[in-house]
Amino acid sequence: MGALDDAHLDEELHCAVGLVPGSGSEMLSTREIEDAVKVLLHGLGEDSGREGLKKTPLRVAKAFLDGTRGYKLKVKDIVQGALFPEAGLESATGCAGGVGGLVVVRDMDMFSYCESCLLPFSIRCHVGYIPSGQRVVGLSKLSRVADVFARRLQEPQRLADEISSALQSSINPAGVAVALQCSHIQLPETLNCKANLKISSKLDMQGWVNASVFSSSGVFKNEDHPFWDDFLALLKFKGIHMEETDPYHSLAQSWCPLRSLDILPCNGRNLTNVKFSPKFGVTQTSMIDAVTSIIEALGEDPSREELMGTPSRFIHWLTNFKKSGFEMKLSRNSLHMKTTNGVAGAEQNEMHTELSLPFCSQCEHHLLPFHGVVHVGYFGSNEGEVIQRCILQSLVHFYSVKLQVQERLTRQIAETVYSVLGTGVMVVVEASHTCMISRGIEKVGCTTATLALLGRFSTEPKAKTMFLQAISNHTATG
Amino acid sequence: MGALDDAHLDEELHCAVGLVPGSGSEMLSTREIEDAVKVLLHGLGEDSGREGLKKTPLRVAKAFLDGTRGYKLKVKDIVQGALFPEAGLESATGCAGGVGGLVVVRDMDMFSYCESCLLPFSIRCHVGYIPSGQRVVGLSKLSRVADVFARRLQEPQRLADEISSALQSSINPAGVAVALQCSHIQLPETLNCKANLKISSKLDMQGWVNASVFSSSGVFKNEDHPFWDDFLALLKFKGIHMEETDPYHSLAQSWCPLRSLDILPCNGRNLTNVKFSPKFGVTQTSMIDAVTSIIEALGEDPSREELMGTPSRFIHWLTNFKKSGFEMKLSRNSLHMKTTNGVAGAEQNEMHTELSLPFCSQCEHHLLPFHGVVHVGYFGSNEGEVIQRCILQSLVHFYSVKLQVQERLTRQIAETVYSVLGTGVMVVVEASHTCMISRGIEKVGCTTATLALLGRFSTEPKAKTMFLQAISNHTATG
Repeated sequence: MGALDDAHLDEELHCAVGLVPGSGSEMLSTREIEDAVKVLLHGLGEDSGREGLKKTPLRVAKAFLDGTRGYKLKVKDIVQGALFPEAGLESATGCAGGVGGLVVVRDMDMFSYCESCLLPFSIRCHVGYIPSGQRVVGLSKLSRVADVFARRLQEPQRLADEISSALQSSINPAGVAVALQCSHIQLPETLNCKANLKISSKLDMQGWVNASVFSSSGVFKNEDHPFWDDFLALLKFKGIHMEETDPYHSLAQSWCPLRSLDILPCNGRNLTNVKFSPKFGVTQTSMIDAVTSIIEALGEDPSREELMGTPSRFIHWLTNFKKSGFEMKLSRNSLHMKTTNGVAGAEQNEMHTELSLPFCSQCEHHLLPFHGVVHVGYFGSNEGEVIQRCILQSLVHFYSVKLQVQERLTRQIAETVYSVLGTGVMVVVEASHTCMISRGIEKVGCTTATLALLGRFSTEPKAKTMFLQAISNHTATG
Repeated sequence: MGALDDAHLDEELHCAVGLVPGSGSEMLSTREIEDAVKVLLHGLGEDSGREGLKKTPLRVAKAFLDGTRGYKLKVKDIVQGALFPEAGLESATGCAGGVGGLVVVRDMDMFSYCESCLLPFSIRCHVGYIPSGQRVVGLSKLSRVADVFARRLQEPQRLADEISSALQSSINPAGVAVALQCSHIQLPETLNCKANLKISSKLDMQGWVNASVFSSSGVFKNEDHPFWDDFLALLKFKGIHMEETDPYHSLAQSWCPLRSLDILPCNGRNLTNVKFSPKFGVTQTSMIDAVTSIIEALGEDPSREELMGTPSRFIHWLTNFKKSGFEMKLSRNSLHMKTTNGVAGAEQNEMHTELSLPFCSQCEHHLLPFHGVVHVGYFGSNEGEVIQRCILQSLVHFYSVKLQVQERLTRQIAETVYSVLGTGVMVVVEASHTCMISRGIEKVGCTTATLALLGRFSTEPKAKTMFLQAISNHTATG
């Protein structure tokens, strides 16, 4: 295994988040969050000294501090250096350039942290403004100003409002329009029992709750202003159809799926009633206190109304991934015996596929979710047994609801299926990792695929090719 | 116009590029590049003291230093802290997890600077590796290591080779496969006269030259290794069809469109023969020296073979955007008189559209290209005159081949058309700005749209709506 060199890692992490190393208050906040994360790891029944978790507290601290660095940024500093004189029309009637010439920047990808649950959410941000006073602002500043507010504990509507009012007051244009398309991860349990939960916003198949919000200032305050049509038309040219998305204000309370659990017994704010297993040696209260201290370390006020239930909800999220004391054992009894159509031995030569089994797991290196789908291909056992899809889904669920890494998840699913069938198993896991978008590297849209080949799949290229083709066909049609 | 506050801007720029302010050699390099950029601006006939250009030298210096910070990064530092022990298979035959379980990270967007011409090019990077020795590397490290080499003066094949060999030697896996999809901006002249230039790589309609390259190490060195099929299949699941792209090695000399000009008389390496107008007061030689000093300030050796012609090519690029002493005046004689089908006055009530006129311009704030399309809608003059598409294309070309900002370009095109027709003109410009991807904010895929409305288009909402709908229909079918 690799050398875990502290000095190097520290340097690299500092570098990654673009922070000046050695700043005193920064160091202090980092230590506070590290300590809190250790409490959380212990609360989850984990050994914070094991190899994969050793540096997790530091990584989490850096990710949180980077993700909320907007608290330390000032819009004035960003915009003041980048207002440029630009003529409007010289002679004719109309709107153009530095007087009235609508400017729209589309598809700026960013992320924020949900103030209700501390999980990151992704944002596609579109900003329009109408220059006035013969001046325009450098285009990149629209993105930078949006980021000042995205890099805080947020919720979509306030974020949009803060961006539009900050741009209005710093650039002083005729008006500003902001449109955000936000995606928040769902609860892992809703992936398996969607029917049990009534979340009024749109749940798509990728495991996201989506919300679209608008905000405006100046002339855009008038909803019938003709510039609205222009703004929406320019978005449409890039395939952005804001009006077709669920209006955010139709959501009763909040878009955050963890908020919807507040009303359920034994959840959210009522979580304090839940008894924790004493074997973890960490009380519920000390976990909540730990999260509260993280919020304070970020420079926020944990007693702000919107943050009141946040520690409980974050812990609710985390406890989905609590270490369980038992191992999943598939027994022959749990398999569904399939009729072999009278042909003895037919099953073991037929490849079975179960595609796109959804999962949501938690990366043990960053305490951040990763989620996606699992594809399983296998040959029936020599006795002609096959596995029901719901059994495979339970297996996927069992191995994903813990602190994990994708490589291990892939192997564990494959090994477990192989242990009962003994013929051939192939597993492909495709996932989006929140840690890839909500930290220094910010690779939005990047996805990770992992592969495990056992038995016949590792020796028969034809079987492997058939399974890969099955996924390909499924992806193309799905 | 806005206050240009030096201290604020300095701070913001430093912050933007993630550099520690005040580092001595960093300051020195910045000053060197700033001085060189001033020479270039003077060589282009520009006043480096005018408002839009005042801070351009500093912005260019920061962008170059940020874009080449890979020279100062060490792969060892990045990877060493992030190698994790991870079991392979416990009992069965096959490949999974920390022994043989293929890991592929797809769609990592990054950018680099072309060593042949100093222009930035964009990269979609896909990396696969086969763990061995019971250990895996943190996923984000694949992106960070790739970035160490992308942030240099590069060309696609060497970049891919450096990434694969760095990952091989630092992680020591069974093998590494790297696939890059790179896009380089074309020459502005090729947008208008594609037939004149024979560039063997694919020119798509968006003004990019595309190249796809592979590199491999370990078991992937064997082109017939079955893991190649798996790697390519996992890319295909995300719609990435590498084998359908032009193989890079079919390009005779280089993918850089400016290299293809080396063989033309009075271009590239022979550019030194071109006489510059003495009114600019800066000799060709001093501009070439200035670019050479930029390359040195970045820590590169300008006498490295691949960089020998780079200063000349960069200047060739820049001189496309030289300030011209004359203004474009459209006269009635340049308009095409259209038959009005016997109905007097019909033309002035008919809206004419010329959509997707391509352009490539140079942002005066960053000396970086922005390019895209211009859509023009207008009503014929009261005399029934209309404007030929080729005249509009010339107009677009004239206003784009200079140091520009998109807002001004939009206004100037609209004003010029309006000055001869006097009825109604609407212009929409849609562009990608290289400065939005190749600097701190890195908003890949973001685009900017600007709008100008003159005469009837500013007073008749119906006319405006019709034109926006025409663009929308065109975009949907195109």
